Amino acid sequence: MPSPRFTAESTSNGVIERDFVVGEVPGVLWSPASGTGRAPLVLMGHAGGNHKRHPAMVGGARRLVTDGGFHVAVLDAPGHGDRPRTAYDEQEVAALRRAREAGEPEGPVARRYSAHLAELAVPEWRATLDALQQLPEIGVDGPVGYFGISLGTAIGVPLVAAEPRITAAIFGLFWPETLVATARRITVPIEFDMQWDDEDMTREAAFELFGAFASTEKTLHANAGRHHEVPRFEADSAVRFFLRHLDTTRPPG
Amino acid sequence: MPSPRFTAESTSNGVIERDFVVGEVPGVLWSPASGTGRAPLVLMGHAGGNHKRHPAMVGGARRLVTDGGFHVAVLDAPGHGDRPRTAYDEQEVAALRRAREAGEPEGPVARRYSAHLAELAVPEWRATLDALQQLPEIGVDGPVGYFGISLGTAIGVPLVAAEPRITAAIFGLFWPETLVATARRITVPIEFDMQWDDEDMTREAAFELFGAFASTEKTLHANAGRHHEVPRFEADSAVRFFLRHLDTTRPPG
Repeated sequence: MPSPRFTAESTSNGVIERDFVVGEVPGVLWSPASGTGRAPLVLMGHAGGNHKRHPAMVGGARRLVTDGGFHVAVLDAPGHGDRPRTAYDEQEVAALRRAREAGEPEGPVARRYSAHLAELAVPEWRATLDALQQLPEIGVDGPVGYFGISLGTAIGVPLVAAEPRITAAIFGLFWPETLVATARRITVPIEFDMQWDDEDMTREAAFELFGAFASTEKTLHANAGRHHEVPRFEADSAVRFFLRHLDTTRPPG
Repeated sequence: MPSPRFTAESTSNGVIERDFVVGEVPGVLWSPASGTGRAPLVLMGHAGGNHKRHPAMVGGARRLVTDGGFHVAVLDAPGHGDRPRTAYDEQEVAALRRAREAGEPEGPVARRYSAHLAELAVPEWRATLDALQQLPEIGVDGPVGYFGISLGTAIGVPLVAAEPRITAAIFGLFWPETLVATARRITVPIEFDMQWDDEDMTREAAFELFGAFASTEKTLHANAGRHHEVPRFEADSAVRFFLRHLDTTRPPG
């Protein structure tokens, strides 16, 4: 089992940032600069149309490292960021753009395209987790969480359902249709973010997906505001959630 | 304007606990033992059938003092704790007990009785706030928050609507019927706790009351579990909420 191949490294404000590649998939690993021993790993999935260095990813990762002491890994989803687009990617991106320009709902295209991306991305994430766990500062039996909203939920729900190493997850802002059956197989603690005034999906859709998780511990956070207005303090809540669920007190292995 | 009359004082684990009386109303004030200068004040309202020293109040107050540096005041609601019960109190408590023993919903009696208690309690809270603000460690223009679930919400919603000094509030676990019209006049930031599997009230009832607040910043927290199973980590979330909204950085006045 190979470790990730690191291609660049920098350090700022107490956080080490390393670009890596696993197979053909590029990612970034953020870690505490002062880290001694092992720390839990949080996998973060970006939203549709974004990429591994979107400000929401960089900001969220830095907060998890600085306030939680975690390692944080983000991958470019297929067809996103530094990755090539296929003809099918181009076709679906064009369909999303047409829907947006026509003022029509993006949901039907977004659900179909995201389900396709998830099929590709789940094995990529699992191989990346294999590789990252070869690093001594993470370790093969270290705790692992997942945090992904929107496309990050479309990919994350099947990933968490398939991956017993992930023991806590934060999801949100995605439609139930393609995910409910898979969510019913998830039993780990869940935090789920929705927007109370989301112009892209109904409240009932969010309640349906949240309701589907089989987890005995799950929390819905509904914030006033539109789809893209998830408040910044939910990133702080994410740190507290992972501090509760990912054991940070194990001695270095 | 008189200060509260203190009747007892003790200190443990960094927290000063002072019993006080304002008029006929007994309360407890918890404060940081190491406090220098002024700190914001959080008013906490207890649940129905409880009192100012219920473990949920003591635990929540200690956490707000220790983790947030706040002062925390709790009063016995009318007919609760160390306060006398009127004939009407006895009548309504008996009606609640009959409903419970018959397996009937307590909601109709609880709403009626709580509305009565709120009419008495709102002026008591306002007089208590007047008195507490005479203390130099709180101050007449210091920030004030309110935190009350269940009966604490039935009293807190009309209190916050009437009291411009309260600039952030946490509510939850109460029915909308008697509170919606008043909630529509509240514009301060709100956190609202509901239980996803509450046996005493429907999800729609919680959504209706949460939806009624006119606040541009409001967050609903829905946790898996029954009415009395609000998870302990919501007390931590309350600390974070008040740290965001009550300015703790002003220089001592």
